[in-house]
Amino acid sequence: MNAPADHAHLAPELHLREVPVALVEALQQRFGAQCSTALAVREQHGRDESIFDVPPPSAVVFAESTRDVADAVKLAAQHKVPVIPFGVGSSLEGHLLAIQGGISIDVSRMDKVLAIHAEDLTVTVQPGITRKAVNEAVRHEGLFFPIDPGADASIGGMTATRASGTNAVRYGTMRENVLALEVVTARGDVIRTGTRAKKSSAGYDLTRLMVGSEGTLGIVTEVTLRLYPLPEAISAAICSFPTIEAAVRTVIQVIQMGVPIARCELIDANTVRMVNAHSKLGLREEHMLLMEFHGSPASVQEQAETVQDIAREFGGNDFEWATTPEERTRLWTARHNAYFAAIQSKPGCRAISTDTCVPISRLADCLLDSVAEADASGIPYFLVGHVGDGNFHFGYLIDPANPQEHRLAEQLNHQLVSRALSLEGTCTGEHGVGLHKMDFLRREAGDGAIGMMRTIKQALDPDNILNPGKIFSL
Amino acid sequence: MNAPADHAHLAPELHLREVPVALVEALQQRFGAQCSTALAVREQHGRDESIFDVPPPSAVVFAESTRDVADAVKLAAQHKVPVIPFGVGSSLEGHLLAIQGGISIDVSRMDKVLAIHAEDLTVTVQPGITRKAVNEAVRHEGLFFPIDPGADASIGGMTATRASGTNAVRYGTMRENVLALEVVTARGDVIRTGTRAKKSSAGYDLTRLMVGSEGTLGIVTEVTLRLYPLPEAISAAICSFPTIEAAVRTVIQVIQMGVPIARCELIDANTVRMVNAHSKLGLREEHMLLMEFHGSPASVQEQAETVQDIAREFGGNDFEWATTPEERTRLWTARHNAYFAAIQSKPGCRAISTDTCVPISRLADCLLDSVAEADASGIPYFLVGHVGDGNFHFGYLIDPANPQEHRLAEQLNHQLVSRALSLEGTCTGEHGVGLHKMDFLRREAGDGAIGMMRTIKQALDPDNILNPGKIFSL
Repeated sequence: MNAPADHAHLAPELHLREVPVALVEALQQRFGAQCSTALAVREQHGRDESIFDVPPPSAVVFAESTRDVADAVKLAAQHKVPVIPFGVGSSLEGHLLAIQGGISIDVSRMDKVLAIHAEDLTVTVQPGITRKAVNEAVRHEGLFFPIDPGADASIGGMTATRASGTNAVRYGTMRENVLALEVVTARGDVIRTGTRAKKSSAGYDLTRLMVGSEGTLGIVTEVTLRLYPLPEAISAAICSFPTIEAAVRTVIQVIQMGVPIARCELIDANTVRMVNAHSKLGLREEHMLLMEFHGSPASVQEQAETVQDIAREFGGNDFEWATTPEERTRLWTARHNAYFAAIQSKPGCRAISTDTCVPISRLADCLLDSVAEADASGIPYFLVGHVGDGNFHFGYLIDPANPQEHRLAEQLNHQLVSRALSLEGTCTGEHGVGLHKMDFLRREAGDGAIGMMRTIKQALDPDNILNPGKIFSL
Repeated sequence: MNAPADHAHLAPELHLREVPVALVEALQQRFGAQCSTALAVREQHGRDESIFDVPPPSAVVFAESTRDVADAVKLAAQHKVPVIPFGVGSSLEGHLLAIQGGISIDVSRMDKVLAIHAEDLTVTVQPGITRKAVNEAVRHEGLFFPIDPGADASIGGMTATRASGTNAVRYGTMRENVLALEVVTARGDVIRTGTRAKKSSAGYDLTRLMVGSEGTLGIVTEVTLRLYPLPEAISAAICSFPTIEAAVRTVIQVIQMGVPIARCELIDANTVRMVNAHSKLGLREEHMLLMEFHGSPASVQEQAETVQDIAREFGGNDFEWATTPEERTRLWTARHNAYFAAIQSKPGCRAISTDTCVPISRLADCLLDSVAEADASGIPYFLVGHVGDGNFHFGYLIDPANPQEHRLAEQLNHQLVSRALSLEGTCTGEHGVGLHKMDFLRREAGDGAIGMMRTIKQALDPDNILNPGKIFSL
């Protein structure tokens, strides 16, 4: 059932299942105005930020409660029809595409904060709330939620893809920061995993099994997250470097020395240019590290001095500081908008984005060879990276109407990911597998581990209705 | 198939399966002197630190390689005979007991360090190596592995029970610190999970599924662990308090303020007395927090001052310091020996130990009520806790020949764990479920989550040969 690699990358193979009229009628009866079959609504729910175009789902249910999700799944299960959960649609690897048909369950109306336990540093939310809304809700308690993929993604989607972002180098990813879940299973049952206790040895770690399962094992309807006290002091610094290698070598040493840096991002000179143009920043158009330090005032100063010393050894310039909250917000917003800045730099283009993560000692090798390849190809690209984790992204900017560019970008992607795998890395640090990385995952995990994943999937979802055709083929 | 709670706690129900002579012969043929059927060897492998006594396994295979483990499992699988992996035998909840018969696979000879990647802060080891041996192997690189359950447990066992210990409050548990695994499946296949990349979104998190699965989903044959740079400065401090409550309130505030304390242990006055008697320490026999601070010299001083200020508010005394490595080692060894100190305090006794973890705000409620109950019972006990995580242990010291004491201790355990569950905690923070916490897990996780665990187990181990009868009943 697996398409040849070449084909799979350019257009996913469709295995559309029939969505019976009886199901759509039953959904309309149960959900009334919460169920839409309007083409525009379906089309909006049938795509994400990936380059793929496939037919949209047959209906969209706007769930407003766990009960709604469970009932929608139960109805779909009766007809063995696929269900695909939808948050804000910001995923990058085709996760949301209805390649086997089915219905979309939009959880964006489930956007409540259910409980803030400030004294325990936890918050329980519905899956449709976005990360920024979580932060707004907890800020008055002096707390924050650190995970920040560029987009203002939904917490449900971030759970499903095991998201991370710029703060992960210090605070971890969704893997470390989801404490407990409520999940609707393939049969429409509601289960709970985990507790609010910080650690536990109580049975199989179903929470971690669900985190990163991309909607293929259950639909998340409630998430308990870890929070952190807002640091007493925060300073952001920019340090520019003569070469990408100098920046990367600096990062490697910072991590190896155990400096508790909170953010450590690489932006190459070319991407800085795009960001300047898009966000009207006057950044020096050189390769740079964009860093942030959290702690007590003394600790922040000490960390910054240590990193400045290391950077100088590698030819880095003096830090430029962003100390006011406004300056910092402007800087990080610009960083988060790098993707859109890049898209805007080539009108009409789309980005083939990729995302790998390697052990930190391999970062320079992996990155520099990939830069050389991309430069040689002539395809414009952006390069940003959560390099403190060994994680980075290329985005190849192609004309979607030009299959040759598309093919060339996929080839670059293929070479890059292959290189990461050969350096003991992973084919995706934070975007997930979706449709786009299935072949790579097979190479990374091997038949044995893929076989185990498949066995688990088949056992928990025997009719293969939960976001089918993603992560691996059945 | 589930024994009534009362009975299960006092003696596990046996469902012995036949171990055919043909299997034992095949094992002897394949493994020669690496296979033992001597009673003394079998008895040593048929118990752990729990109070239960059941018949030993029929044979013990001393595996020296992944291939050995795989071959032993394959032979056992042919006869549908249980296999129970064995590290050093330090588990506490009956994990190692052959309640359905079978063979023990001892991995203690698989104790090699396979690769130290100092520059990536990772080490890859065989499962039989102990945590102390890992630390000896990496110390010359300026690195350490922080997870320290009291015993010098094997890394395989620590993986299987999702162990943690005194450093978890800062460095996390085995959940956060295992990066990748090699695992032998129920069919004797060898699979790999994870990579050396620090983070990944590549498919189901099989690593985390295996961590904490207590040998019921696979046998771990290789583990890649995260390491940390040895802190530039370390200081340990003791602070004594007039009441347990004062100590606990101090901890709660320290955590809520986000002080990055590395260790934060509670020992009650009674347990301090036992520890003094056992380890010949002259500790003030009062309730105390035993703390450690890691970081730069300035940061360590700052952290300590912050905590001292908080402690004073709650009536804590001035810190007593252990600054030399020798003093610190002596102190932490004494802490780790609290269990043995307690056992020694009542000759011939055994400990019914328990382990719960609650959200930090509930810690005082949970602990103080449990202390009052234990005091009222008249049964001697010890009380220690990784209180920075909301995790603590009682050990009730009973005469194993006195069923009434046993029953009373189990009743105290039952009340304590029930209380933790009602406070949104977990029935085990780090010891695991084994045989002893099965009923509690069912209450904690609910039928839905237990059903999902069971489905996964049945799918991955259809003949139920991997450490059967542990965690939940089938």
